[in-house]
Amino acid sequence: MFARPTGCVTLLSDFGLSDPYVGLLKGALLRASPKVQVIDLCHGVPPHQVAAGAFVWGAAVARFPAGTVHVGVVDPGVGTTRRLLAVAAEQCYWIGPDNGLVSRVLQTAGEAEVRAIDVEHLGLSAESRTFHGRDLMAPVAAWLASGRYGFTALGPRISDPALLAPSAATPHVLWVDHYGNLVSNVPAAALDGVRGVVVGAQQVPLVGTYQDVAAGALLAYVGSFGLLEIAQNQGSAAATLGAGTGATIRLLRP
Amino acid sequence: MFARPTGCVTLLSDFGLSDPYVGLLKGALLRASPKVQVIDLCHGVPPHQVAAGAFVWGAAVARFPAGTVHVGVVDPGVGTTRRLLAVAAEQCYWIGPDNGLVSRVLQTAGEAEVRAIDVEHLGLSAESRTFHGRDLMAPVAAWLASGRYGFTALGPRISDPALLAPSAATPHVLWVDHYGNLVSNVPAAALDGVRGVVVGAQQVPLVGTYQDVAAGALLAYVGSFGLLEIAQNQGSAAATLGAGTGATIRLLRP
Amino acid sequence: MFARPTGCVTLLSDFGLSDPYVGLLKGALLRASPKVQVIDLCHGVPPHQVAAGAFVWGAAVARFPAGTVHVGVVDPGVGTTRRLLAVAAEQCYWIGPDNGLVSRVLQTAGEAEVRAIDVEHLGLSAESRTFHGRDLMAPVAAWLASGRYGFTALGPRISDPALLAPSAATPHVLWVDHYGNLVSNVPAAALDGVRGVVVGAQQVPLVGTYQDVAAGALLAYVGSFGLLEIAQNQGSAAATLGAGTGATIRLLRP
Repeated sequence: MFARPTGCVTLLSDFGLSDPYVGLLKGALLRASPKVQVIDLCHGVPPHQVAAGAFVWGAAVARFPAGTVHVGVVDPGVGTTRRLLAVAAEQCYWIGPDNGLVSRVLQTAGEAEVRAIDVEHLGLSAESRTFHGRDLMAPVAAWLASGRYGFTALGPRISDPALLAPSAATPHVLWVDHYGNLVSNVPAAALDGVRGVVVGAQQVPLVGTYQDVAAGALLAYVGSFGLLEIAQNQGSAAATLGAGTGATIRLLRP
Repeated sequence: MFARPTGCVTLLSDFGLSDPYVGLLKGALLRASPKVQVIDLCHGVPPHQVAAGAFVWGAAVARFPAGTVHVGVVDPGVGTTRRLLAVAAEQCYWIGPDNGLVSRVLQTAGEAEVRAIDVEHLGLSAESRTFHGRDLMAPVAAWLASGRYGFTALGPRISDPALLAPSAATPHVLWVDHYGNLVSNVPAAALDGVRGVVVGAQQVPLVGTYQDVAAGALLAYVGSFGLLEIAQNQGSAAATLGAGTGATIRLLRP
Repeated sequence: MFARPTGCVTLLSDFGLSDPYVGLLKGALLRASPKVQVIDLCHGVPPHQVAAGAFVWGAAVARFPAGTVHVGVVDPGVGTTRRLLAVAAEQCYWIGPDNGLVSRVLQTAGEAEVRAIDVEHLGLSAESRTFHGRDLMAPVAAWLASGRYGFTALGPRISDPALLAPSAATPHVLWVDHYGNLVSNVPAAALDGVRGVVVGAQQVPLVGTYQDVAAGALLAYVGSFGLLEIAQNQGSAAATLGAGTGATIRLLRP
């Protein structure tokens, strides 16, 4: 469970890329440890959408080297008393606010250890009430990634992290991507016997990949996240269907 | 032709930057070789526009250290039987689908060697039918960049890569940039005796640089790609002219 | 003042991220010195807005390791005879056009040394009249960051860099961020006795942080730049107030 950190840190946020926030987060990492290797996982989480951020962290499981430190700053409660968490799970580390961002990682992890970061004990204080990513999470992540502090030194173990409700309940859209593809919460394993889906009033066949349907046609398939997706071959399913995050999906069985 | 790889890998795609796709591509590179240095060349290729991606790869020739491995994922045919290519040309390596993406590089290269990546022989298999960039191209690129495999070990040499039609035929717009500048396919060398251009019904003078015309005026000039561009001083030529990718350009000679 | 360069280079520009320009800037850095570590500070400066770029550089002071080389390419005068500057200030280096981009850094710096880059003496020449960032600034920055040239070798000392007017005059909006927050030029220290602000016709209370007001309410607070900001809790102040860069702000004292 405690893979040796390798110096690799990834960043997840709802900052977008038009402002200096991501750059300043990287500056804070490098000030704490000049040798960390920083990778942008995704900064396109819709503002304050913790569930969308949790989806992206879930999608990062097993996709980075063991020992990677993932930092997540989707933090609508910044400046309140919500805790900051450090989690060891899936051979990586996850640093973020205690608001459910790590839910998907914890729900699939065989075992996990969750700690509340003891900011004061680590000698940190938040210069700003609105940017704990820069002031608190970045230094902690850099210290962990560089080996200055071990995971267990970051704070006391806790057993009650905030968790989002399991996403398995109703099939729905988790993420709309750049192509207008609708990524759902339905894992490939739940598609046995399914022959298609319905979104809005539109029926869409379940096929293998894009080229199984004509140009312009809608299709459902298992996408690269291992989840059901709905797309339009050479088009935008989101635009054509008028569907977005949260839209419900009905699975058709014969 | 076979420059020694230096560990530098660039990424070109039509992924945009709002999704986790670029981050996951980097994760796959780092899992295959933790020491590669990853640079984003461009992720703003319009979705599925292979010709626009080919333009960007052409623009990268001689702009990165010898031995750089360029990965290109503009891949509308992903999941079909189209081959994956590894190309040695212009002192760099180019890894991408066999759909013409490497056309501009091959058209200017003095000599080049093209190989079809033997995925099975390399022990790879695509986990997903829609993200061969992550599952296949990234590991191959990381292995090549890190020296784990030499170029000739990647697969058999071939002589029939897919090529786009030469772009020299009719002057037209290849790329519209962030400023609304229209980048054409007309090289500086083809401008002898040209005194201006016509786009739509609008005549535009050929000058040296922005400050040669008044604020708000349109101008044609040789841009940083070594190609004819049309811009508006302190404005957007694309908006003012209502012109985009593919728009034809007429060269005016006295 | 002359911190030892560490190999870290940051990039600031108005290039956006949809084009290959940022990637080509990084290629030029790596060609000049393959070991530099490149960080994107911000590429979302509105086109040609030197004042907005100056704000971002000001925000970077003390946020990166000592010895960092900051490169700024907000350069509407590219291709004219404007000088290129190298500045040592605030324990870092700043490379950019002589158009005021370094104003905020110089205005707060205790001491600073400004040099005009002697392009010819360094053996450089601009291949393009429109991309001096790639052709001139990137190699100079890479050489400085890697120790190939010391700061004093870059060109003669000058005493007349272009400076923007001090921003302290009238309270106004400097930057509108991704969330629609309005970042002003008013430092925290100027808020003694202030109980609120007026933007347009709207009065907004000065509070500590988001959670001090109801969802949907407007608030003024000291943001992470140490400056007065105006936001809407779970909304966009820019959209709600119809206010953007340059909008004036009135400070309310009892």
